[in-house]
Amino acid sequence: MRETSFKEMVAESSRMKRSSIVLALDLIPKEPKSLLSKSMEVLEETHRYICALKINRHLVLPLGLFGGVQKILETARDLGLPTIMDCKINDIGHTNRIIAEQYFKAGFDAVTANPLVGWDGGLKPVFEVAREMGRGVILLVYMSHKAAAEGYGQRVYDPAAGKTKPQYLVFAERALSWNADGAVVGATYPEKIREVHDLLGSQVPIYSPGVGVQGGSVESAVRSGARYIIVGRSIVLADDPCEAAKSIRERVMRLPLES
Amino acid sequence: MRETSFKEMVAESSRMKRSSIVLALDLIPKEPKSLLSKSMEVLEETHRYICALKINRHLVLPLGLFGGVQKILETARDLGLPTIMDCKINDIGHTNRIIAEQYFKAGFDAVTANPLVGWDGGLKPVFEVAREMGRGVILLVYMSHKAAAEGYGQRVYDPAAGKTKPQYLVFAERALSWNADGAVVGATYPEKIREVHDLLGSQVPIYSPGVGVQGGSVESAVRSGARYIIVGRSIVLADDPCEAAKSIRERVMRLPLES
Repeated sequence: MRETSFKEMVAESSRMKRSSIVLALDLIPKEPKSLLSKSMEVLEETHRYICALKINRHLVLPLGLFGGVQKILETARDLGLPTIMDCKINDIGHTNRIIAEQYFKAGFDAVTANPLVGWDGGLKPVFEVAREMGRGVILLVYMSHKAAAEGYGQRVYDPAAGKTKPQYLVFAERALSWNADGAVVGATYPEKIREVHDLLGSQVPIYSPGVGVQGGSVESAVRSGARYIIVGRSIVLADDPCEAAKSIRERVMRLPLES
Repeated sequence: MRETSFKEMVAESSRMKRSSIVLALDLIPKEPKSLLSKSMEVLEETHRYICALKINRHLVLPLGLFGGVQKILETARDLGLPTIMDCKINDIGHTNRIIAEQYFKAGFDAVTANPLVGWDGGLKPVFEVAREMGRGVILLVYMSHKAAAEGYGQRVYDPAAGKTKPQYLVFAERALSWNADGAVVGATYPEKIREVHDLLGSQVPIYSPGVGVQGGSVESAVRSGARYIIVGRSIVLADDPCEAAKSIRERVMRLPLES
Protein backbone atom coordinates (compact mmCIF):
# COMPACT_ATOMS: atom_id res chain seq x y z
CA MET A 1 0.00 0.00 0.00
CA ARG A 2 1.40 3.36 -1.07
CA GLU A 3 1.20 6.35 1.23
CA THR A 4 0.23 9.01 -1.31
CA SER A 5 -2.83 8.86 -3.53
CA PHE A 6 -2.49 8.94 -7.30
CA LYS A 7 -3.90 12.48 -7.25
CA GLU A 8 -1.10 13.59 -4.92
CA MET A 9 1.51 11.63 -6.85
CA VAL A 10 0.75 13.47 -10.10
CA ALA A 11 0.49 16.85 -8.33
CA GLU A 12 3.92 16.23 -6.78
CA SER A 13 5.37 15.17 -10.14
CA SER A 14 3.87 18.30 -11.74
CA ARG A 15 5.52 20.54 -9.13
CA MET A 16 8.89 18.80 -9.42
CA LYS A 17 8.93 18.76 -13.22
CA ARG A 18 7.31 22.19 -13.52
CA SER A 19 5.00 20.66 -16.13
CA SER A 20 1.31 19.95 -16.53
CA ILE A 21 1.73 17.87 -19.67
CA VAL A 22 0.60 14.25 -19.67
CA LEU A 23 2.19 12.52 -22.63
CA ALA A 24 -0.21 10.22 -24.51
CA LEU A 25 2.20 7.76 -26.10
CA ASP A 26 -0.20 7.04 -28.98
CA LEU A 27 2.03 5.87 -31.80
CA ILE A 28 0.43 4.23 -34.80
CA PRO A 29 0.94 0.45 -34.56
CA LYS A 30 3.13 -0.98 -37.32
CA GLU A 31 5.86 -3.47 -36.55
CA PRO A 32 5.88 -4.32 -32.80
CA LYS A 33 9.69 -4.09 -32.64
CA SER A 34 9.91 -0.58 -34.10
CA LEU A 35 6.79 0.47 -32.13
CA LEU A 36 8.52 -0.39 -28.86
CA SER A 37 11.81 1.27 -29.75
CA LYS A 38 10.04 4.37 -31.05
CA SER A 39 7.96 4.54 -27.84
CA MET A 40 11.09 4.34 -25.70
CA GLU A 41 12.75 6.96 -27.86
CA VAL A 42 9.87 9.45 -27.53
CA LEU A 43 9.71 8.83 -23.78
CA GLU A 44 13.46 9.40 -23.33
CA GLU A 45 13.30 12.56 -25.48
CA THR A 46 10.32 14.13 -23.70
CA HIS A 47 10.39 12.97 -20.06
CA ARG A 48 11.95 16.21 -18.77
CA TYR A 49 8.93 18.17 -19.97
CA ILE A 50 6.06 15.96 -18.86
CA CYS A 51 4.53 15.10 -15.48
CA ALA A 52 2.89 11.77 -16.31
CA LEU A 53 2.58 9.16 -19.04
CA LYS A 54 -0.66 7.85 -20.54
CA ILE A 55 -0.83 4.65 -22.60
CA ASN A 56 -3.72 3.39 -24.72
CA ARG A 57 -4.53 0.29 -26.79
CA HIS A 58 -2.24 1.66 -29.54
CA LEU A 59 0.56 0.03 -27.54
CA VAL A 60 -1.18 -2.58 -25.37
CA LEU A 61 -2.66 -4.57 -28.25
CA PRO A 62 0.38 -4.90 -30.53
CA LEU A 63 3.06 -5.02 -27.80
CA GLY A 64 1.20 -6.99 -25.11
CA LEU A 65 0.63 -5.72 -21.57
CA PHE A 66 3.20 -8.01 -19.96
CA GLY A 67 5.44 -7.76 -23.02
CA GLY A 68 6.54 -4.40 -24.37
CA VAL A 69 4.19 -2.23 -22.32
CA GLN A 70 5.68 -3.43 -19.03
CA LYS A 71 9.14 -2.42 -20.30
CA ILE A 72 7.84 1.10 -21.01
CA LEU A 73 6.29 1.25 -17.53
CA GLU A 74 9.60 0.25 -15.94
CA THR A 75 11.35 3.04 -17.84
CA ALA A 76 8.63 5.51 -16.79
CA ARG A 77 9.10 4.49 -13.16
CA ASP A 78 12.88 4.96 -13.44
CA LEU A 79 12.17 8.43 -14.81
CA GLY A 80 9.82 9.19 -11.91
CA LEU A 81 6.71 9.43 -14.08
CA PRO A 82 3.28 8.27 -12.85
CA THR A 83 1.48 6.15 -15.48
CA ILE A 84 -2.15 6.04 -16.58
CA MET A 85 -3.78 3.25 -18.59
CA ASP A 86 -6.50 4.85 -20.68
CA CYS A 87 -8.64 1.72 -20.88
CA LYS A 88 -11.99 3.52 -20.38
CA ILE A 89 -13.36 0.62 -18.32
CA ASN A 90 -17.08 0.06 -19.03
CA ASP A 91 -17.88 -3.59 -18.41
CA ILE A 92 -19.67 -5.39 -15.56
CA GLY A 93 -18.02 -5.29 -12.15
CA HIS A 94 -16.53 -8.80 -12.17
CA THR A 95 -14.76 -8.10 -15.48
CA ASN A 96 -13.91 -4.50 -14.55
CA ARG A 97 -12.07 -5.73 -11.48
CA ILE A 98 -10.04 -8.21 -13.54
CA ILE A 99 -9.16 -5.52 -16.11
CA ALA A 100 -8.03 -3.06 -13.41
CA GLU A 101 -6.08 -5.75 -11.52
CA GLN A 102 -4.20 -6.78 -14.66
CA TYR A 103 -3.23 -3.20 -15.49
CA PHE A 104 -2.19 -2.46 -11.90
CA LYS A 105 -0.26 -5.73 -11.70
CA ALA A 106 1.66 -4.73 -14.82
CA GLY A 107 2.64 -1.50 -13.06
CA PHE A 108 0.11 1.18 -14.04
CA ASP A 109 -0.59 3.76 -11.34
CA ALA A 110 -4.10 4.60 -12.56
CA VAL A 111 -6.84 3.53 -14.98
CA THR A 112 -9.59 5.51 -16.70
CA ALA A 113 -13.22 4.40 -16.46
CA ASN A 114 -16.62 5.39 -17.88
CA PRO A 115 -19.13 6.47 -15.20
CA LEU A 116 -22.06 5.44 -17.43
CA VAL A 117 -21.55 1.98 -15.92
CA GLY A 118 -22.80 3.10 -12.49
CA TRP A 119 -21.68 1.92 -9.07
CA ASP A 120 -23.07 -1.42 -7.78
CA GLY A 121 -21.62 -4.32 -9.72
CA GLY A 122 -20.15 -1.68 -12.05
CA LEU A 123 -17.28 0.66 -11.11
CA LYS A 124 -17.34 -0.04 -7.37
CA PRO A 125 -14.99 -3.04 -7.79
CA VAL A 126 -12.59 -0.82 -9.78
CA PHE A 127 -12.41 1.79 -7.01
CA GLU A 128 -12.06 -1.02 -4.46
CA VAL A 129 -9.12 -2.68 -6.17
CA ALA A 130 -7.53 0.74 -6.78
CA ARG A 131 -7.77 1.55 -3.07
CA GLU A 132 -6.48 -1.90 -2.07
CA MET A 133 -3.44 -1.50 -4.33
CA GLY A 134 -2.91 2.23 -3.73
CA ARG A 135 -3.72 3.22 -7.32
CA GLY A 136 -5.96 5.79 -8.98
CA VAL A 137 -9.16 5.99 -11.03
CA ILE A 138 -9.85 8.82 -13.50
CA LEU A 139 -13.39 9.18 -14.85
CA LEU A 140 -14.53 10.29 -18.30
CA VAL A 141 -16.76 13.35 -18.02
CA TYR A 142 -16.85 14.90 -21.50
CA MET A 143 -14.80 13.56 -24.37
CA SER A 144 -13.00 15.51 -27.06
CA HIS A 145 -14.56 14.15 -30.27
CA LYS A 146 -17.18 15.65 -32.54
CA ALA A 147 -20.10 13.41 -31.53
CA ALA A 148 -19.45 13.80 -27.78
CA ALA A 149 -22.73 15.74 -27.54
CA GLU A 150 -24.64 12.56 -28.52
CA GLY A 151 -23.67 10.96 -25.21
CA TYR A 152 -21.76 13.17 -22.79
CA GLY A 153 -23.79 16.19 -23.87
CA GLN A 154 -27.26 14.66 -23.77
CA ARG A 155 -29.70 15.87 -21.11
CA VAL A 156 -30.80 13.23 -18.63
CA TYR A 157 -33.75 13.26 -16.28
CA ASP A 158 -32.92 13.70 -12.62
CA PRO A 159 -35.82 12.18 -10.62
CA ALA A 160 -34.69 13.91 -7.39
CA ALA A 161 -34.79 17.38 -8.98
CA GLY A 162 -37.75 16.61 -11.24
CA LYS A 163 -35.93 18.05 -14.28
CA THR A 164 -33.23 17.29 -16.81
CA LYS A 165 -29.53 18.12 -16.54
CA PRO A 166 -26.49 17.53 -18.76
CA GLN A 167 -24.96 14.05 -18.71
CA TYR A 168 -21.50 15.47 -18.08
CA LEU A 169 -22.64 17.11 -14.85
CA VAL A 170 -24.12 13.80 -13.71
CA PHE A 171 -20.74 12.20 -14.46
CA ALA A 172 -18.86 15.03 -12.70
CA GLU A 173 -21.04 14.50 -9.62
CA ARG A 174 -20.09 10.81 -9.69
CA ALA A 175 -16.40 11.81 -9.86
CA LEU A 176 -16.93 13.86 -6.69
CA SER A 177 -18.99 11.37 -4.74
CA TRP A 178 -16.84 8.39 -5.75
CA ASN A 179 -13.72 10.39 -4.89
CA ALA A 180 -12.08 9.93 -8.29
CA ASP A 181 -8.46 10.99 -8.79
CA GLY A 182 -9.28 12.93 -11.92
CA ALA A 183 -11.92 13.80 -14.51
CA VAL A 184 -11.41 13.89 -18.28
CA VAL A 185 -12.94 16.83 -20.17
CA GLY A 186 -11.99 17.53 -23.81
CA ALA A 187 -10.02 20.69 -24.61
CA THR A 188 -12.22 21.00 -27.68
CA TYR A 189 -15.05 22.05 -25.32
CA PRO A 190 -13.56 24.71 -23.00
CA GLU A 191 -17.02 25.84 -21.87
CA LYS A 192 -17.62 22.32 -20.54
CA ILE A 193 -14.27 22.41 -18.72
CA ARG A 194 -15.43 25.63 -17.04
CA GLU A 195 -18.76 24.16 -15.94
CA VAL A 196 -17.19 20.93 -14.68
CA HIS A 197 -14.44 22.85 -12.90
CA ASP A 198 -17.05 25.02 -11.14
CA LEU A 199 -18.47 21.80 -9.73
CA LEU A 200 -15.26 19.90 -8.94
CA GLY A 201 -13.04 22.75 -7.72
CA SER A 202 -9.65 21.42 -6.72
CA GLN A 203 -11.04 18.18 -5.29
CA VAL A 204 -10.97 16.36 -8.63
CA PRO A 205 -8.37 17.70 -11.10
CA ILE A 206 -9.37 17.95 -14.77
CA TYR A 207 -7.28 16.15 -17.38
CA SER A 208 -7.86 17.61 -20.82
CA PRO A 209 -7.10 15.81 -24.11
CA GLY A 210 -7.84 17.09 -27.62
CA VAL A 211 -5.33 19.93 -28.08
CA GLY A 212 -3.44 20.26 -31.36
CA VAL A 213 -4.52 17.71 -34.00
CA GLN A 214 -8.05 17.51 -32.59
CA GLY A 215 -8.38 21.31 -32.58
CA GLY A 216 -8.48 22.21 -28.88
CA SER A 217 -6.44 25.12 -27.52
CA VAL A 218 -4.01 24.64 -24.64
CA GLU A 219 -4.61 28.19 -23.47
CA SER A 220 -8.40 28.06 -23.34
CA ALA A 221 -8.37 24.61 -21.69
CA VAL A 222 -6.09 25.85 -18.90
CA ARG A 223 -7.90 29.18 -18.50
CA SER A 224 -11.18 27.23 -18.20
CA GLY A 225 -9.86 25.10 -15.36
CA ALA A 226 -7.94 22.14 -16.79
CA ARG A 227 -5.15 21.09 -14.39
CA TYR A 228 -3.38 18.71 -16.77
CA ILE A 229 -3.13 18.81 -20.55
CA ILE A 230 -2.97 15.44 -22.29
CA VAL A 231 -0.92 15.68 -25.48
CA GLY A 232 -0.49 12.83 -27.94
CA ARG A 233 -0.07 13.30 -31.67
CA SER A 234 1.24 16.91 -31.40
CA ILE A 235 4.27 15.46 -29.62
CA VAL A 236 4.65 11.84 -30.72
CA LEU A 237 4.20 12.55 -34.44
CA ALA A 238 6.28 15.76 -34.38
CA ASP A 239 9.58 15.83 -36.26
CA ASP A 240 11.18 16.80 -32.98
CA PRO A 241 9.12 15.38 -30.06
CA CYS A 242 11.52 16.90 -27.51
CA GLU A 243 11.07 20.42 -28.88
CA ALA A 244 7.29 19.93 -29.23
CA ALA A 245 6.93 18.78 -25.61
CA LYS A 246 9.13 21.60 -24.34
CA SER A 247 7.22 24.21 -26.29
CA ILE A 248 3.75 23.06 -25.15
CA ARG A 249 4.97 22.82 -21.56
CA GLU A 250 6.21 26.38 -21.74
CA ARG A 251 2.93 27.64 -23.15
CA VAL A 252 1.16 26.09 -20.15
CA MET A 253 3.74 27.44 -17.67
CA ARG A 254 2.92 30.98 -18.73
CA LEU A 255 -0.69 30.51 -17.69
CA PRO A 256 -2.15 30.69 -14.19
CA LEU A 257 -2.49 27.07 -13.00
CA GLU A 258 -4.07 25.78 -9.81
CA SER A 259 -1.54 24.24 -7.47
CA MET B 1 -13.70 -9.06 -48.26
CA ARG B 2 -16.01 -11.80 -47.03
CA GLU B 3 -19.29 -12.46 -48.77
CA THR B 4 -21.49 -12.99 -45.71
CA SER B 5 -21.96 -10.45 -42.94
CA PHE B 6 -21.10 -11.32 -39.36
CA LYS B 7 -24.82 -11.43 -38.59
CA GLU B 8 -25.35 -14.07 -41.30
CA MET B 9 -22.20 -15.94 -40.27
CA VAL B 10 -23.45 -16.45 -36.70
CA ALA B 11 -26.99 -17.29 -37.88
CA GLU B 12 -25.53 -19.95 -40.19
CA SER B 13 -23.33 -21.32 -37.42
CA SER B 14 -26.35 -21.42 -35.11
CA ARG B 15 -28.37 -23.42 -37.64
CA MET B 16 -25.50 -25.84 -38.33
CA LYS B 17 -24.64 -26.41 -34.68
CA ARG B 18 -28.26 -26.32 -33.56
CA SER B 19 -27.14 -24.02 -30.75
CA SER B 20 -27.75 -20.43 -29.69
CA ILE B 21 -25.04 -20.46 -27.04
CA VAL B 22 -22.16 -18.00 -27.31
CA LEU B 23 -19.37 -19.19 -25.05
CA ALA B 24 -17.75 -16.38 -23.05
CA LEU B 25 -14.31 -17.82 -22.37
CA ASP B 26 -13.89 -15.77 -19.19
CA LEU B 27 -11.43 -17.75 -17.11
CA ILE B 28 -9.87 -16.10 -14.09
CA PRO B 29 -6.31 -15.03 -14.98
CA LYS B 30 -3.64 -16.86 -13.00
CA GLU B 31 -0.57 -18.25 -14.69
CA PRO B 32 -0.59 -17.40 -18.43
CA LYS B 33 0.53 -20.91 -19.37
CA SER B 34 -2.25 -22.69 -17.51
CA LEU B 35 -4.73 -20.00 -18.59
CA LEU B 36 -4.05 -20.77 -22.25
CA SER B 37 -4.17 -24.52 -21.87
CA LYS B 38 -7.35 -24.32 -19.76
CA SER B 39 -8.94 -22.03 -22.39
CA MET B 40 -8.10 -24.48 -25.16
CA GLU B 41 -9.42 -27.36 -23.06
CA VAL B 42 -12.78 -25.65 -22.40
CA LEU B 43 -13.09 -24.73 -26.08
CA GLU B 44 -12.37 -28.28 -27.22
CA GLU B 45 -14.81 -29.71 -24.67
CA THR B 46 -17.69 -27.37 -25.53
CA HIS B 47 -17.40 -26.45 -29.22
CA ARG B 48 -20.06 -28.94 -30.33
CA TYR B 49 -22.66 -27.17 -28.26
CA ILE B 50 -21.92 -23.51 -29.03
CA CYS B 51 -22.42 -21.31 -32.09
CA ALA B 52 -19.79 -18.61 -31.40
CA LEU B 53 -16.95 -17.70 -29.07
CA LYS B 54 -16.61 -14.46 -27.12
CA ILE B 55 -13.32 -13.34 -25.55
CA ASN B 56 -12.74 -10.53 -23.06
CA ARG B 57 -9.78 -8.87 -21.33
CA HIS B 58 -9.61 -11.90 -18.97
CA LEU B 59 -7.56 -13.50 -21.75
CA VAL B 60 -6.28 -10.57 -23.84
CA LEU B 61 -4.38 -8.86 -21.02
CA PRO B 62 -2.50 -11.82 -19.52
CA LEU B 63 -2.03 -13.81 -22.76
CA GLY B 64 -1.48 -10.98 -25.22
CA LEU B 65 -3.60 -10.43 -28.35
CA PHE B 66 -0.93 -11.64 -30.78
CA GLY B 67 0.29 -14.20 -28.26
CA GLY B 68 -2.07 -16.72 -26.72
CA VAL B 69 -5.32 -15.15 -27.90
CA GLN B 70 -4.42 -15.56 -31.55
CA LYS B 71 -3.80 -19.28 -30.93
CA ILE B 72 -7.31 -19.59 -29.46
CA LEU B 73 -8.75 -17.73 -32.47
CA GLU B 74 -7.00 -20.13 -34.85
CA THR B 75 -8.50 -23.09 -33.00
CA ALA B 76 -11.93 -21.44 -33.09
CA ARG B 77 -11.63 -20.94 -36.84
CA ASP B 78 -10.65 -24.59 -37.30
CA LEU B 79 -13.75 -25.52 -35.33
CA GLY B 80 -15.90 -23.25 -37.53
CA LEU B 81 -16.78 -20.85 -34.72
CA PRO B 82 -17.23 -17.09 -35.33
CA THR B 83 -15.38 -15.02 -32.72
CA ILE B 84 -16.34 -11.83 -30.87
CA MET B 85 -13.96 -9.53 -28.99
CA ASP B 86 -15.94 -7.99 -26.16
CA CYS B 87 -13.82 -4.83 -25.95
CA LYS B 88 -16.77 -2.44 -25.47
CA ILE B 89 -15.07 0.24 -27.58
CA ASN B 90 -15.76 3.73 -26.17
CA ASP B 91 -12.86 6.00 -27.11
CA ILE B 92 -12.48 8.74 -29.75
CA GLY B 93 -12.70 7.69 -33.39
CA HIS B 94 -8.98 7.69 -34.18
CA THR B 95 -8.27 5.35 -31.26
CA ASN B 96 -11.42 3.30 -31.83
CA ARG B 97 -10.31 2.55 -35.37
CA ILE B 98 -6.89 1.39 -34.17
CA ILE B 99 -8.47 -0.84 -31.49
CA ALA B 100 -10.87 -2.44 -33.99
CA GLU B 101 -8.14 -2.89 -36.61
CA GLN B 102 -5.86 -4.63 -34.14
CA TYR B 103 -8.57 -7.05 -33.03
CA PHE B 104 -9.65 -7.77 -36.61
CA LYS B 105 -6.02 -8.20 -37.69
CA ALA B 106 -5.57 -10.79 -34.94
CA GLY B 107 -8.53 -12.68 -36.39
CA PHE B 108 -11.66 -11.60 -34.52
CA ASP B 109 -14.84 -11.58 -36.60
CA ALA B 110 -16.60 -8.90 -34.55
CA VAL B 111 -16.10 -6.34 -31.78
CA THR B 112 -18.50 -4.87 -29.25
CA ALA B 113 -18.85 -1.09 -28.86
CA ASN B 114 -20.66 1.39 -26.63
CA PRO B 115 -23.13 3.63 -28.51
CA LEU B 116 -22.77 6.38 -25.88
CA VAL B 117 -19.77 7.50 -27.96
CA GLY B 118 -21.99 8.68 -30.84
CA TRP B 119 -21.24 8.61 -34.55
CA ASP B 120 -18.97 11.38 -35.97
CA GLY B 121 -15.40 10.91 -34.82
CA GLY B 122 -16.78 8.21 -32.50
CA LEU B 123 -18.08 4.83 -33.69
CA LYS B 124 -18.27 5.70 -37.40
CA PRO B 125 -14.59 4.68 -37.91
CA VAL B 126 -15.33 1.34 -36.20
CA PHE B 127 -18.22 0.56 -38.54
CA GLU B 128 -16.10 1.70 -41.48
CA VAL B 129 -13.16 -0.56 -40.69
CA ALA B 130 -15.56 -3.44 -39.96
CA ARG B 131 -17.20 -3.00 -43.38
CA GLU B 132 -13.81 -2.69 -45.11
CA MET B 133 -12.57 -5.90 -43.53
CA GLY B 134 -15.91 -7.76 -43.67
CA ARG B 135 -16.32 -7.96 -39.89
CA GLY B 136 -19.12 -7.15 -37.44
CA VAL B 137 -20.01 -4.64 -34.74
CA ILE B 138 -22.28 -5.48 -31.81
CA LEU B 139 -23.59 -2.60 -29.68
CA LEU B 140 -24.28 -2.50 -25.95
CA VAL B 141 -27.92 -1.63 -25.31
CA TYR B 142 -28.61 -2.68 -21.71
CA MET B 143 -26.03 -4.40 -19.56
CA SER B 144 -26.59 -7.18 -17.06
CA HIS B 145 -25.20 -5.70 -13.85
CA LYS B 146 -27.03 -4.25 -10.86
CA ALA B 147 -26.26 -0.56 -11.53
CA ALA B 148 -27.20 -0.78 -15.23
CA ALA B 149 -30.19 1.48 -14.50
CA GLU B 150 -27.78 4.33 -13.58
CA GLY B 151 -26.68 4.55 -17.22
CA TYR B 152 -28.53 2.30 -19.66
CA GLY B 153 -31.77 2.78 -17.73
CA GLN B 154 -31.65 6.56 -17.32
CA ARG B 155 -34.20 8.69 -19.17
CA VAL B 156 -32.74 11.08 -21.71
CA TYR B 157 -34.32 14.08 -23.33
CA ASP B 158 -35.21 13.68 -26.99
CA PRO B 159 -35.31 17.18 -28.51
CA ALA B 160 -37.16 15.93 -31.62
CA ALA B 161 -40.00 14.43 -29.58
CA GLY B 162 -39.89 17.10 -26.87
CA LYS B 163 -39.90 14.45 -24.14
CA THR B 164 -37.69 11.94 -22.36
CA LYS B 165 -37.17 8.30 -23.32
CA PRO B 166 -35.06 5.45 -21.90
CA GLN B 167 -31.36 5.45 -22.78
CA TYR B 168 -31.54 1.83 -23.94
CA LEU B 169 -34.14 2.68 -26.56
CA VAL B 170 -31.90 5.50 -27.83
CA PHE B 171 -29.07 2.95 -28.05
CA ALA B 172 -31.34 0.37 -29.75
CA GLU B 173 -32.31 3.01 -32.35
CA ARG B 174 -28.61 3.59 -33.01
CA ALA B 175 -28.15 -0.18 -33.49
CA LEU B 176 -30.88 -0.05 -36.15
CA SER B 177 -29.77 3.08 -37.96
CA TRP B 178 -26.08 2.16 -37.87
CA ASN B 179 -26.95 -1.35 -39.07
CA ALA B 180 -25.21 -3.14 -36.20
CA ASP B 181 -24.77 -6.91 -36.32
CA GLY B 182 -26.17 -7.39 -32.86
CA ALA B 183 -27.34 -5.70 -29.66
CA VAL B 184 -26.43 -6.74 -26.12
CA VAL B 185 -29.24 -6.79 -23.54
CA GLY B 186 -28.74 -8.45 -20.13
CA ALA B 187 -30.75 -11.60 -19.34
CA THR B 188 -31.17 -10.15 -15.86
CA TYR B 189 -33.63 -7.66 -17.37
CA PRO B 190 -36.02 -9.73 -19.56
CA GLU B 191 -38.54 -6.87 -19.74
CA LYS B 192 -35.83 -4.75 -21.40
CA ILE B 193 -35.12 -7.57 -23.87
CA ARG B 194 -38.82 -7.53 -24.78
CA GLU B 195 -38.90 -3.76 -25.34
CA VAL B 196 -35.68 -3.75 -27.35
CA HIS B 197 -36.83 -6.74 -29.40
CA ASP B 198 -40.10 -4.98 -30.21
CA LEU B 199 -37.99 -2.21 -31.74
CA LEU B 200 -35.28 -4.28 -33.46
CA GLY B 201 -37.34 -7.22 -34.71
CA SER B 202 -35.13 -9.65 -36.59
CA GLN B 203 -32.99 -6.90 -38.14
CA VAL B 204 -30.59 -6.74 -35.19
CA PRO B 205 -30.36 -9.97 -33.16
CA ILE B 206 -30.14 -9.70 -29.38
CA TYR B 207 -27.19 -11.27 -27.56
CA SER B 208 -27.99 -11.80 -23.90
CA PRO B 209 -25.39 -12.25 -21.14
CA GLY B 210 -26.05 -12.60 -17.42
CA VAL B 211 -27.64 -16.05 -17.09
CA GLY B 212 -26.53 -18.36 -14.29
CA VAL B 213 -24.06 -16.76 -11.87
CA GLN B 214 -25.47 -13.27 -12.50
CA GLY B 215 -29.02 -14.47 -11.89
CA GLY B 216 -30.66 -14.22 -15.32
CA SER B 217 -32.86 -17.01 -16.66
CA VAL B 218 -32.18 -18.62 -20.03
CA GLU B 219 -35.87 -19.29 -20.51
CA SER B 220 -37.13 -15.78 -19.86
CA ALA B 221 -34.35 -14.21 -21.95
CA VAL B 222 -35.25 -16.37 -24.95
CA ARG B 223 -39.01 -15.98 -24.48
CA SER B 224 -38.49 -12.20 -24.34
CA GLY B 225 -36.68 -12.15 -27.68
CA ALA B 226 -33.00 -12.94 -27.13
CA ARG B 227 -31.57 -14.73 -30.19
CA TYR B 228 -28.25 -15.74 -28.61
CA ILE B 229 -27.44 -16.53 -25.00
CA ILE B 230 -23.94 -15.61 -23.84
CA VAL B 231 -22.74 -18.02 -21.17
CA GLY B 232 -19.49 -17.65 -19.28
CA ARG B 233 -18.95 -18.74 -15.72
CA SER B 234 -21.81 -21.31 -15.74
CA ILE B 235 -19.79 -23.24 -18.33
CA VAL B 236 -16.13 -22.32 -17.86
CA LEU B 237 -16.13 -22.72 -14.07
CA ALA B 238 -18.34 -25.86 -14.11
CA ASP B 239 -16.81 -29.15 -12.98
CA ASP B 240 -17.81 -30.51 -16.38
CA PRO B 241 -17.89 -27.66 -18.96
CA CYS B 242 -18.96 -30.07 -21.71
CA GLU B 243 -22.00 -31.26 -19.78
CA ALA B 244 -22.84 -27.69 -18.70
CA ALA B 245 -22.72 -26.38 -22.30
CA LYS B 246 -24.76 -29.30 -23.58
CA SER B 247 -27.39 -28.89 -20.91
CA ILE B 248 -27.84 -25.11 -21.43
CA ARG B 249 -27.95 -25.60 -25.20
CA GLU B 250 -30.71 -28.18 -24.78
CA ARG B 251 -32.72 -25.89 -22.52
CA VAL B 252 -32.61 -23.24 -25.27
CA MET B 253 -33.45 -25.75 -28.03
CA ARG B 254 -36.73 -26.56 -26.29
CA LEU B 255 -37.82 -22.93 -26.60
CA PRO B 256 -39.27 -21.16 -29.64
CA LEU B 257 -36.36 -19.26 -31.25
CA GLU B 258 -36.46 -16.87 -34.18
CA SER B 259 -34.63 -18.24 -37.18
